[in-house]
Amino acid sequence: MLIVGEKINTSRPEVSKAVKEKDISLIVNLAKRQAESGANYIDVNCGTFVQEEQRLLKWLVEEIQKEIKAPICIDSPSPLAVESALKLHRGQALVNSISGEKSRYEPITPLVVEYGCKIVVLCMDDTHGVPKTAEIRFGIASKVIEILVKKGISLDDIYIDPLIQPVSTNTINGKVALETILLVKKNYPGIHAICGLSNISFGLPSRKLLNQTFMVLCMAAGLDAVILNPEDRRMMSSIYGAEALLGFDSYCVKYLNSYRSGLLD
Amino acid sequence: MLIVGEKINTSRPEVSKAVKEKDISLIVNLAKRQAESGANYIDVNCGTFVQEEQRLLKWLVEEIQKEIKAPICIDSPSPLAVESALKLHRGQALVNSISGEKSRYEPITPLVVEYGCKIVVLCMDDTHGVPKTAEIRFGIASKVIEILVKKGISLDDIYIDPLIQPVSTNTINGKVALETILLVKKNYPGIHAICGLSNISFGLPSRKLLNQTFMVLCMAAGLDAVILNPEDRRMMSSIYGAEALLGFDSYCVKYLNSYRSGLLD
Repeated sequence: MLIVGEKINTSRPEVSKAVKEKDISLIVNLAKRQAESGANYIDVNCGTFVQEEQRLLKWLVEEIQKEIKAPICIDSPSPLAVESALKLHRGQALVNSISGEKSRYEPITPLVVEYGCKIVVLCMDDTHGVPKTAEIRFGIASKVIEILVKKGISLDDIYIDPLIQPVSTNTINGKVALETILLVKKNYPGIHAICGLSNISFGLPSRKLLNQTFMVLCMAAGLDAVILNPEDRRMMSSIYGAEALLGFDSYCVKYLNSYRSGLLD
Repeated sequence: MLIVGEKINTSRPEVSKAVKEKDISLIVNLAKRQAESGANYIDVNCGTFVQEEQRLLKWLVEEIQKEIKAPICIDSPSPLAVESALKLHRGQALVNSISGEKSRYEPITPLVVEYGCKIVVLCMDDTHGVPKTAEIRFGIASKVIEILVKKGISLDDIYIDPLIQPVSTNTINGKVALETILLVKKNYPGIHAICGLSNISFGLPSRKLLNQTFMVLCMAAGLDAVILNPEDRRMMSSIYGAEALLGFDSYCVKYLNSYRSGLLD
């Protein structure tokens, strides 16, 4: 399971304040703590600073990579901001995201080729917005996958995001996301599926319970990357447990090591 | 999700002692508490009292049903013990279990027909013991299902148990059980899948975490009945959450009611 640490996002007041005040030590500390808790990638999103996004994203990526080894998940729909960050990024970045919308995949696909990064693809497009059914979401994913593969991008560098909508607004929203993951993973062996979790529980009580349970359901469907708070010990424990139970953890070595390191909750 | 409360089992010292001392109030109290915590069936197993099993099982079923409405899961491989209990059981009993072993399905199948009860079928037989692969387990289930259906038993009264073996002894043991559930549910629409959970985590630390996580994975595969301790609040919370996330809980009504009743943990 590839873990993307979600905490460096200026939609969070703590981060927004730190960015405004150029308090890079707070940001670097967030990055370090997430990496130590098991994050493979550190997400960086400063989309709330609309006008300054390009400059700030570049600054954040550069400063964070001075202090930690983990690669960055460059979280922006803006081709200009993404390219600025890719130019100075060390290692293989993950760009989050493009979609089936022409205005999103056309300018960013050449950057993915040029910089050899990984790319997240959202299952939405100009015609359908966020589609209601798993079949239409899969159709959009297929279209974008074919475009990326034609450009020489490997399936191993593509992460499909099924899009998670709250189960409180429509009873089938969980099921649609799970079926989209199943369809993508079954039809494109070697590709990856990624999502964020917190949307699923929007508007309901005991959100941590729902997010954690949904994580396990997504893993059963084939999810192999996730954007979350790696400092949530119970969530991480569920992931280690599910990896062992799904046969991905030979002799339960990783699970046992997590236990010995005091990580299980 | 059909919940079978597992606590009235003489392999548990508390229950063994109560049965020896004819302390029926302790037993009835266990039954009541499980029913109040959400058990649809109360499992009764006195298999450790080998010679007296028939007499004790009959006594336990009769005494418990004097005090509570819930039907009983008659948990014994003995046709004599099962028949004694079925004779005086009120409502539709669940008999646990038969298997593909001739000595088990031949004497009990006529009782299932005569008393109109539900029946658990274990995926093992005389040739294979407990089979290594999901395909062989499914083959055994199919054979028994065909026998039962020919006798007029409805798929809705059949509960297939894939058999759960510890993931500590073989990395694929979780996966084999999950695939067996998937195969059974896909090929026999309307049939049920049931299992106990605790075997999966045998020999590993943080067993509750593993059992709870495996429960969610089993539900993703189609499990719709389970033998467990319904007083385990975190486990029951996972079940309510997974039902909502899998689209089985229209408008999340059951989940919200569980929350309002203080059941979520």
